[in-house]
Amino acid sequence: MPPIVGLLSDFGLQDHYVGAMKGAVLAACPDATLVDIVHDLPAHDIMAGALALDSAYRAFPARAVFLAVVDPGVGSPRRGLAASVGGYFFVGPDNGILSLVLRAEPRGEVRALTNTGLFRYEVSPVFHGRDVFAPVAGHLARGTPFEEVGPLATDAILLQVPPLERRGPVEWQATVLHVDRFGNLTTNVTERDLRAMGEVAPRDLSDLQVSVEGVILPFARVYSDVAQGEPCAVLGSSGRLEIAVNQGSASRQLGAWTGALVRLFFTEWSARDEPSDGVVV
Amino acid sequence: MPPIVGLLSDFGLQDHYVGAMKGAVLAACPDATLVDIVHDLPAHDIMAGALALDSAYRAFPARAVFLAVVDPGVGSPRRGLAASVGGYFFVGPDNGILSLVLRAEPRGEVRALTNTGLFRYEVSPVFHGRDVFAPVAGHLARGTPFEEVGPLATDAILLQVPPLERRGPVEWQATVLHVDRFGNLTTNVTERDLRAMGEVAPRDLSDLQVSVEGVILPFARVYSDVAQGEPCAVLGSSGRLEIAVNQGSASRQLGAWTGALVRLFFTEWSARDEPSDGVVV
Amino acid sequence: MPPIVGLLSDFGLQDHYVGAMKGAVLAACPDATLVDIVHDLPAHDIMAGALALDSAYRAFPARAVFLAVVDPGVGSPRRGLAASVGGYFFVGPDNGILSLVLRAEPRGEVRALTNTGLFRYEVSPVFHGRDVFAPVAGHLARGTPFEEVGPLATDAILLQVPPLERRGPVEWQATVLHVDRFGNLTTNVTERDLRAMGEVAPRDLSDLQVSVEGVILPFARVYSDVAQGEPCAVLGSSGRLEIAVNQGSASRQLGAWTGALVRLFFTEWSARDEPSDGVVV
Repeated sequence: MPPIVGLLSDFGLQDHYVGAMKGAVLAACPDATLVDIVHDLPAHDIMAGALALDSAYRAFPARAVFLAVVDPGVGSPRRGLAASVGGYFFVGPDNGILSLVLRAEPRGEVRALTNTGLFRYEVSPVFHGRDVFAPVAGHLARGTPFEEVGPLATDAILLQVPPLERRGPVEWQATVLHVDRFGNLTTNVTERDLRAMGEVAPRDLSDLQVSVEGVILPFARVYSDVAQGEPCAVLGSSGRLEIAVNQGSASRQLGAWTGALVRLFFTEWSARDEPSDGVVV
Repeated sequence: MPPIVGLLSDFGLQDHYVGAMKGAVLAACPDATLVDIVHDLPAHDIMAGALALDSAYRAFPARAVFLAVVDPGVGSPRRGLAASVGGYFFVGPDNGILSLVLRAEPRGEVRALTNTGLFRYEVSPVFHGRDVFAPVAGHLARGTPFEEVGPLATDAILLQVPPLERRGPVEWQATVLHVDRFGNLTTNVTERDLRAMGEVAPRDLSDLQVSVEGVILPFARVYSDVAQGEPCAVLGSSGRLEIAVNQGSASRQLGAWTGALVRLFFTEWSARDEPSDGVVV
Repeated sequence: MPPIVGLLSDFGLQDHYVGAMKGAVLAACPDATLVDIVHDLPAHDIMAGALALDSAYRAFPARAVFLAVVDPGVGSPRRGLAASVGGYFFVGPDNGILSLVLRAEPRGEVRALTNTGLFRYEVSPVFHGRDVFAPVAGHLARGTPFEEVGPLATDAILLQVPPLERRGPVEWQATVLHVDRFGNLTTNVTERDLRAMGEVAPRDLSDLQVSVEGVILPFARVYSDVAQGEPCAVLGSSGRLEIAVNQGSASRQLGAWTGALVRLFFTEWSARDEPSDGVVV
């Protein structure tokens, strides 16, 4: 299998930065297959990068290397990290961009990038994407042993995704984490959260009501379960509850953006549904 | 020759969707060369996808596989299709996105995607691009026999490009199909249409007048045949009549967008030019 | 090492043009690794293309081929060129897009593209990117001898980057050449210019003052040397003086765009600092 390097950054596509970073990967690993994940992240938005990385990496074949660079602190004493987790490698600054991956794959190994022999021959203090992270990613892709990047690091910075909050026996408050190009709203509610909700109240998830900006939405399997132009909630493709409008923009139609609050609740609540102890949602 | 997979979608470049889809192609075919055609199509615009695919595929080497995903009906009962036509393979939803390719290559073979063994191990009902179409494209790229994707399908949905209309002996009405990033207007008039017009009226095509929004344009060979800032009509690079402004934007300058009407006519019409029977334009 | 082809154009990402051009590279060199440098250059902006190419190519491994197409004069008698310089190959129109590369690598060899046998079988007069430059780049990538593209050309068009102007004994006027997606301002002041300034006035570069739109900025090593939201000047990653705001947009905050003037001067000037003869800045 040829080495695969997935790239993610906030460099945008109007400048030469992504190209230069790819050149530096190839200088270290000329036969790498380079795969863009996303580069049009909001500038300096580490959480957006962490979310996009978490949403994409599982689709790749094992042993792929991911180069994730949203790096507002470039050149400051912040460290560089590499992680070997879930069968993949990840490289980027120690600022939280690997947070969701490291939380999802707790049995991984994280190392600080101290082996300057793996860096580019000259390191610009303002472009570690090209001169530090890309060459290290290239070296990992071509088979350099993971240990060689540097010593173990056990204190990687982990950002906190806004938590799902329990507001009543069968009511929760969630948050919109991301608005995609279709206007779909990705929330902080995971598939696991939904299953736990289903246990709290012994009902079918189709009884779950979702409310955003005062509009109550049905829980659907796919967008086209509702009429064109109608909103719904679905389990999105990256395993999070998503609010969408069939062939329209939920964001525009509901006036909701990143950070918007979402209410989830079961209807026809009765005493029988009293939550059992020990269920953590 | 390494396997080549060209990708086209309306996923945009601000989210992780294209990256996840590419990961899924590589999971099925790790040595594929992935080539983006376009991902910034207008959301849900199947016809725009069909046009872009038709404009690009002939430039690729034979045996390339094209993964075309504009899929507003994802998760609904609409089928997935694969086509083996013109020496290439195409994979996408059965919603018309393959229309122009299938019309251009009538001797091809089209099959419904029913072999779930070729899909990703888990299929999200809202992301068939990643979980159905990408793996099938990867399998075709790595040499899985075309027959294995599923049974023959003879009733693929074909969208209708707005037809060129004959308005008089030597007059036609055309439509703008696409406005590109330069503001060039691509019309529904093909090279074949132009040849037929030339037979209707035994004149040189340089006598053809093109009129858009009240402005009459000369027929030129290249943009620079007219002065900078002047409009002209040329035979565009994908074989369709195109309206352009030399180093400017025809769309902005003429106030014309997708759907705008274009008049074509020969000047100095005389009885001698009466169209012969049997010429279909 | 597999052949590497870097691509740069003003084709944008909303149309099929980049994809078709890549298909044409692969038709000539099926095992090429294609690497996008940038395609969202301002339409027809040759200087922006020349700058992006110059900023990116050194990060690539030797023998990479660069296909640079900003081509407002496509189809006119302007020539096509290929250059073998600095260990790389470059292909594009003879309109100045290779200017900065050719100035940086004066010992290279430049040839006119006259060998039509290397072109696509059919050449559209309005898309030489796909039909002329891409196939030639593909042929060079697969090892076609450089001499075969055509005869030596010694008179390539070279654009002039606005020069740095000496305004006083220890004062210079520079120009903003580019505003990147972060709002950083790239100037025409090179690292070499800065070293020469340091010789003119025997001081540390940290004494250099930079003034843009009436705001005086400190010279910093990295963005985070100043507080969040504060402006500074740094030596940017492509070897040019850059004006930035830590985690903000210098362009927006200072109201400065491409073409803005920048003043550089040393403070505490004294007779002792009188410039020595022969120092050219």
